[in-house]
Amino acid sequence: MVALLHVHPTRQADLREPDEPRISPAVPIDEYEDSFGNVCTRFVAPAGNFRLSHSTLVEDSGEPEPVCPQARQVPVEDLPPEILRYLLPSRYCEVDRLVEIAGNLFGGFSPGWPRVQAVCDWVQANVAFGYHFASPTKTAVDVYHDRNGVCRDFQHLAITFCRCLNIPARYATGYLGDIGVPARPPMDFSAWLEVFLHDRWWTFDARNNTPRIGRVLMATGRDAADVAITTSFGTSVLKSFNVVTEEVTTTKAATAE
Amino acid sequence: MVALLHVHPTRQADLREPDEPRISPAVPIDEYEDSFGNVCTRFVAPAGNFRLSHSTLVEDSGEPEPVCPQARQVPVEDLPPEILRYLLPSRYCEVDRLVEIAGNLFGGFSPGWPRVQAVCDWVQANVAFGYHFASPTKTAVDVYHDRNGVCRDFQHLAITFCRCLNIPARYATGYLGDIGVPARPPMDFSAWLEVFLHDRWWTFDARNNTPRIGRVLMATGRDAADVAITTSFGTSVLKSFNVVTEEVTTTKAATAE
Amino acid sequence: MVALLHVHPTRQADLREPDEPRISPAVPIDEYEDSFGNVCTRFVAPAGNFRLSHSTLVEDSGEPEPVCPQARQVPVEDLPPEILRYLLPSRYCEVDRLVEIAGNLFGGFSPGWPRVQAVCDWVQANVAFGYHFASPTKTAVDVYHDRNGVCRDFQHLAITFCRCLNIPARYATGYLGDIGVPARPPMDFSAWLEVFLHDRWWTFDARNNTPRIGRVLMATGRDAADVAITTSFGTSVLKSFNVVTEEVTTTKAATAE
Amino acid sequence: MVALLHVHPTRQADLREPDEPRISPAVPIDEYEDSFGNVCTRFVAPAGNFRLSHSTLVEDSGEPEPVCPQARQVPVEDLPPEILRYLLPSRYCEVDRLVEIAGNLFGGFSPGWPRVQAVCDWVQANVAFGYHFASPTKTAVDVYHDRNGVCRDFQHLAITFCRCLNIPARYATGYLGDIGVPARPPMDFSAWLEVFLHDRWWTFDARNNTPRIGRVLMATGRDAADVAITTSFGTSVLKSFNVVTEEVTTTKAATAE
Repeated sequence: MVALLHVHPTRQADLREPDEPRISPAVPIDEYEDSFGNVCTRFVAPAGNFRLSHSTLVEDSGEPEPVCPQARQVPVEDLPPEILRYLLPSRYCEVDRLVEIAGNLFGGFSPGWPRVQAVCDWVQANVAFGYHFASPTKTAVDVYHDRNGVCRDFQHLAITFCRCLNIPARYATGYLGDIGVPARPPMDFSAWLEVFLHDRWWTFDARNNTPRIGRVLMATGRDAADVAITTSFGTSVLKSFNVVTEEVTTTKAATAE
Repeated sequence: MVALLHVHPTRQADLREPDEPRISPAVPIDEYEDSFGNVCTRFVAPAGNFRLSHSTLVEDSGEPEPVCPQARQVPVEDLPPEILRYLLPSRYCEVDRLVEIAGNLFGGFSPGWPRVQAVCDWVQANVAFGYHFASPTKTAVDVYHDRNGVCRDFQHLAITFCRCLNIPARYATGYLGDIGVPARPPMDFSAWLEVFLHDRWWTFDARNNTPRIGRVLMATGRDAADVAITTSFGTSVLKSFNVVTEEVTTTKAATAE
Repeated sequence: MVALLHVHPTRQADLREPDEPRISPAVPIDEYEDSFGNVCTRFVAPAGNFRLSHSTLVEDSGEPEPVCPQARQVPVEDLPPEILRYLLPSRYCEVDRLVEIAGNLFGGFSPGWPRVQAVCDWVQANVAFGYHFASPTKTAVDVYHDRNGVCRDFQHLAITFCRCLNIPARYATGYLGDIGVPARPPMDFSAWLEVFLHDRWWTFDARNNTPRIGRVLMATGRDAADVAITTSFGTSVLKSFNVVTEEVTTTKAATAE
Repeated sequence: MVALLHVHPTRQADLREPDEPRISPAVPIDEYEDSFGNVCTRFVAPAGNFRLSHSTLVEDSGEPEPVCPQARQVPVEDLPPEILRYLLPSRYCEVDRLVEIAGNLFGGFSPGWPRVQAVCDWVQANVAFGYHFASPTKTAVDVYHDRNGVCRDFQHLAITFCRCLNIPARYATGYLGDIGVPARPPMDFSAWLEVFLHDRWWTFDARNNTPRIGRVLMATGRDAADVAITTSFGTSVLKSFNVVTEEVTTTKAATAE
């Protein structure tokens, strides 16, 4: 079994508590870095019931994600080579089937940030959210037609549109608390997307579609197939699942003590 | 534009002529290695007509690919971490949708080589070949139902079945001459699959399904989306396309002169 | 708006109370018979909230559906012409995509009743039931891969397999009470399938897969697209939905008074 | 085997030669009318090779199909009941998956004829024709994404869009000669669509998209699944196929002699 539970390496410096997944009953755990730079946990699941858990404390800037409308779209010929794979189709992102549609819908917007924002606006406005719309085989084309889905479906459609427009886009998963938004019990890990503009990856979220405070990135990949929280290579049944994100408001001084 | 024309790094030692793609009219060419280890050629295509060509000479053992029925299936927990991604679904390989079917069809065969061979036998026996069945959006599930396709479709279905059975499998593309088989004009690059057993990748071919002499590997990836001969990030029209594979029979002594 | 609420004409003789759909606020109602022989209710929905209701009393034999293993499969050339359309593909039944699979799975069973029973057994055994698997666009091919669905999905897959095997099959919808089975609150209209063998249509049910007492047929068609309980040609929202089936045990003498 | 070779009953009065399909070697032939009013030919194919042929002479007005931009769209509530089924989804026309898209693309055009014409214009402009794009399982959604197909694919997409817009539409198949257009050898039966406006069905053609002289209707149905030229309920191989349409220019006086 492979699990993606660690906080992403880019947030290691912000950890204020150890970042160690736990399995009970205890079994040996291996760690490795996958081809996307995520830290994966790998173990042979014990027979019978077992519990996989993880808890840590992350210091956050307390600022919402940056918004940078002037971030320019990088011409494909100037993209770093390692970025190019985020333009290709993947399991849930059929770039080859949505190229014409993306061009028609978004070709009229300015390249770069405004075009990405137009993609997110369209997806948020045209797709209905509902947990009963979840399906593990649902692809961007399905979402485009059915016009409904869960968090990951919104992001898959937005990612696919961006790639169709020659804007590198990847899938991100992690914690999203409710800091600064009307209280709502967090019920699951969250998904969002990252888009490469100018010289870096930027956070967008085609479902919430507003900058948020306190996202904690765990993993990125081409789509959800690359960054499942757990991937079982055998039969397993999920009996219970619980995600809690809490804000611990301490002053920096206090933390330093 | 990105092109995959170089011979694969694993065959560099066998090159007897330079391995340099040419573009006319000439434009600057960059090379980079993608995340799968393939050598990619990247350039801004000149406006108007242009010609992309490549020619080299490769020394081959003259032996057909090895057959090793005792090559064992590696338990998932013992697979090297960098191999795990070849168990996941990808654009043309919907592992998540064929798991039950693969289990029903091939669960009765011995793990390892015999099970992979059973997959290739089934695909070859049940899928009809025809160039008019080609479609750039055809996936393994489509091939499973339509029971027809071109070379890449055979391999996509076989790769997907292998992954469903927890056997790492990847897509390979390159030259396949007709040495040792009834003469047939080579008309296209060929595709086959590679399967990880014991401690290495092995060549299988769900279309031809017999060991062949003189395959020259160019690139490997999760499926055809990763290793297109050319990927255009803009509009382009293929006006003509020509692949020639010839056997140059010289003695080793002669070559050394 | 078109509604299918009437009891099927074949059960008219069993009605012990009027069989009249009601709409409040009241609007004019038309009735017509569709090309499958179902009695349809048609009306212009009043603006705002409205309630569509129906209630009747049906006398039933109290016997489970007949089981007739010797009912023979009619060769296609001997089928009545009006039956032939139940061999063709329809919206949710991609006969053209499942022919090979059906032949492989069921070709070994005796034609006629045993082959149909084998289809229902396979579907019941291989498809998981769950209301959260419901999707209005789910087809037989989707059910075959996802291996889950609601009542209608089970029937669509079974219908498709039967047609692939040259056995005419159609979709049926109506009331299914819980007489003779462990009590369970009826929550929806039910779907089953009818199969043409020997010289008549027979009831099968790929979900419950056991003869039942007290089915009340409302409509039949090629698949669920033909016999939706309501079809809206405009925007409408279903606010509440309630189906109740109760057994009224009176002696015939009493009823005759 | 069922064949649709007869000229449609609506053109019977125009026949100037007998309209009799022939099979050699000769086998008994039955005729029946299907639920759409088409005259079907039904027979048990002789074992081995056989030839199915048909030839007749039809008198035509010599006028192109009528164009009537003022033909109004009939509100659903006023449609004759037997027309309603041409609003529903069918095998190749996933109305349920294209409703939103059709509304976005064509909602801005005037209802009735102009909206239908806008549908045909869009399909003709956005879909590329090519015999190598033919696939027996290709649906309207596939055509919408792939943007290519053969004659029937153009019509399936246009039919689906019309139904999404509450305009009844059906599939038509028959002969289309080349009278009045630049000479082109007829190579196949042709497909077009019929749309119900005002009080009758009108001919549209999303591929040629211009009124033509000399269409000879053979059959209509919900989509191509209903009106295949031949439907085999067993294995058969098409060895050769030939359609010839010739204009016989005689004066009416001469014909009357």
